[in-house]
Amino acid sequence: PAWEVVEDHHLEATYEFDDFAEALAFTNEIGELAEAEWHHPDIHLSWGEVGVEMWSHDIGGLHESDFVMAARMDRIYDGDD
Amino acid sequence: PAWEVVEDHHLEATYEFDDFAEALAFTNEIGELAEAEWHHPDIHLSWGEVGVEMWSHDIGGLHESDFVMAARMDRIYDGDD
Repeated sequence: PAWEVVEDHHLEATYEFDDFAEALAFTNEIGELAEAEWHHPDIHLSWGEVGVEMWSHDIGGLHESDFVMAARMDRIYDGDD
Repeated sequence: PAWEVVEDHHLEATYEFDDFAEALAFTNEIGELAEAEWHHPDIHLSWGEVGVEMWSHDIGGLHESDFVMAARMDRIYDGDD
């Protein structure tokens, strides 16, 4: 999906799914990535939708690693990961 | 945790955890309950925290089943389920 830079501070995107179970499965996939990279987004899981908000807490804003994570989440969503 | 009735419309609570992995595990447990009961809350997963918002979409407000779900989530959190 389209990532947006919000208030020069964080990245935000919403991924869409057919139902709750698929959204939960995606939450687990990006949760696994977050643990592996030790970089944890905020995740808003609801029926058919996963919202992600991400920034680098140590610098209180965006770092290259946020954009790398965003791209990797997109690949997971697209099924290439 | 303490559930609050917000704007006479939905229930809201925040569960606390030691880290992201525990919060994700709880998300899966309540996600499984949501699928079993076919009643799906909004879940906000972040480091060490799971926020839950719940209401009955079909009536646009609170129904007994919301309170039953809330109590079951508390039991899961307390480890009695």
